[in-house]
Amino acid sequence: MTKELKFAIGLAKKSGKLILAALNEEQSASAKTVKRDICTSADLAAEKLIVEEIKSKFPTHNIIREEGKNIQNGSDYTWLIDALDGTKYFISGIKFFTTSIALWHKNKPIMGVIYQPGTDECWFAEKGKGVFLNDRKLKVAQEIQLKNSIISLDINHLSLLTKNEQKILFERLKKIASNFYRFRVIGSGSLSLCYLAMGHFDAYFDLSGRQEMWDLGAGLIIAQEAGAKITDLNGSWPGIDSEHLVVTNGKIHDKVLKLLQ
Amino acid sequence: MTKELKFAIGLAKKSGKLILAALNEEQSASAKTVKRDICTSADLAAEKLIVEEIKSKFPTHNIIREEGKNIQNGSDYTWLIDALDGTKYFISGIKFFTTSIALWHKNKPIMGVIYQPGTDECWFAEKGKGVFLNDRKLKVAQEIQLKNSIISLDINHLSLLTKNEQKILFERLKKIASNFYRFRVIGSGSLSLCYLAMGHFDAYFDLSGRQEMWDLGAGLIIAQEAGAKITDLNGSWPGIDSEHLVVTNGKIHDKVLKLLQ
Repeated sequence: MTKELKFAIGLAKKSGKLILAALNEEQSASAKTVKRDICTSADLAAEKLIVEEIKSKFPTHNIIREEGKNIQNGSDYTWLIDALDGTKYFISGIKFFTTSIALWHKNKPIMGVIYQPGTDECWFAEKGKGVFLNDRKLKVAQEIQLKNSIISLDINHLSLLTKNEQKILFERLKKIASNFYRFRVIGSGSLSLCYLAMGHFDAYFDLSGRQEMWDLGAGLIIAQEAGAKITDLNGSWPGIDSEHLVVTNGKIHDKVLKLLQ
Repeated sequence: MTKELKFAIGLAKKSGKLILAALNEEQSASAKTVKRDICTSADLAAEKLIVEEIKSKFPTHNIIREEGKNIQNGSDYTWLIDALDGTKYFISGIKFFTTSIALWHKNKPIMGVIYQPGTDECWFAEKGKGVFLNDRKLKVAQEIQLKNSIISLDINHLSLLTKNEQKILFERLKKIASNFYRFRVIGSGSLSLCYLAMGHFDAYFDLSGRQEMWDLGAGLIIAQEAGAKITDLNGSWPGIDSEHLVVTNGKIHDKVLKLLQ
């Protein structure tokens, strides 16, 4: 384990635990606005903690984050941070949220950590070194048929899409529902990719094509190191700003790309 | 707390812990068939434990269960049991599964317990006495607009539907996606209703209309005691064998029924 990974794991756990502690405070509040405020302030505090530690340890690196301003130092190394992925769950007191920290080199992820404080589960991966959930090595499923496969979808920002984009979205959704064994929409990109690495999901796709890379920066290398294939709709490696990411167990990748054309 | 509820909570926790213990054994197996066998045998063992204890304590009651044969004694009291809701999650080592135990009187639930051993969360409710998650009282959300609401959907058995039923399903799905803020498909009917009781979801609907009542027997009273409204598509109280259940926070119920016509 490199010192970067050790550092990122420690940081993700610190952030996650800070947010989990805020959950208890939040649950004793009755007004939804107060709950939102506590959520926002926990999110910002955790992000600040992560950013400060990265800045102090790797002052030349770039940082892309959900809440605050990005830091662009012109480095080949970029950290992608989501201190709290799953704010809506947090606000309801459901422990289905994570901290996600990734390190990318140029256009590719080289390290990723996702920590779910509510279950004390930590997924982590480094390029070429496999992926682990706590101490267990993970591997994608070996399913080769769509009709036996489960796909996890993200569908956000529907109202931001044009009429034509919406039409394409619904055509794809119908094809997915008719051809896969099941589709899921769990409301967490980071956990979708962790569960794909665990062999539960055979594929992941963002139907609206507006995925946010700070959510997925760590999940992509976690899936990849478990054997997942990742491309855009054309079958190329997607960059950090790519749309319409397709992630699969590898075995069904071509069938999924064909279905989504 | 009545002695029936105390008994059911104890039983759900015993069952859940038995299944959680099997998860560790299961995770050390590498072959999927072995994993499935361990899952099935844990499911059956937990169900047997629950049924034996109910039979010994309430020998005249009926029992409806997922795996084994139902017990029909002609009683007004019926227990609905799902020892392991979430087998697919279990097989992948994801702790997103529950034990669900309900007691119905004639056509209505009077008591329900859902226990998630992976997070040690226990939801329980009795008719007229409110609903609790561990020691916290729950209440549905107060949202009145669909465009701010989140709906949880179940979509199973698609291949069992006729062409016309499939057509209606996709039309409804499109209307839901276009009118709600978000829709989710989390793959657990029991947790969908718990999360509705917690105010996270504003509505729940089984799009395929083939929901299994042993999954939902406990969830329905848990949602109801948090303030949820439950009807079928016509706005009537659904019986134990009803199809197309509509559960909402109450405030958006009429709008949801209208949307789904």
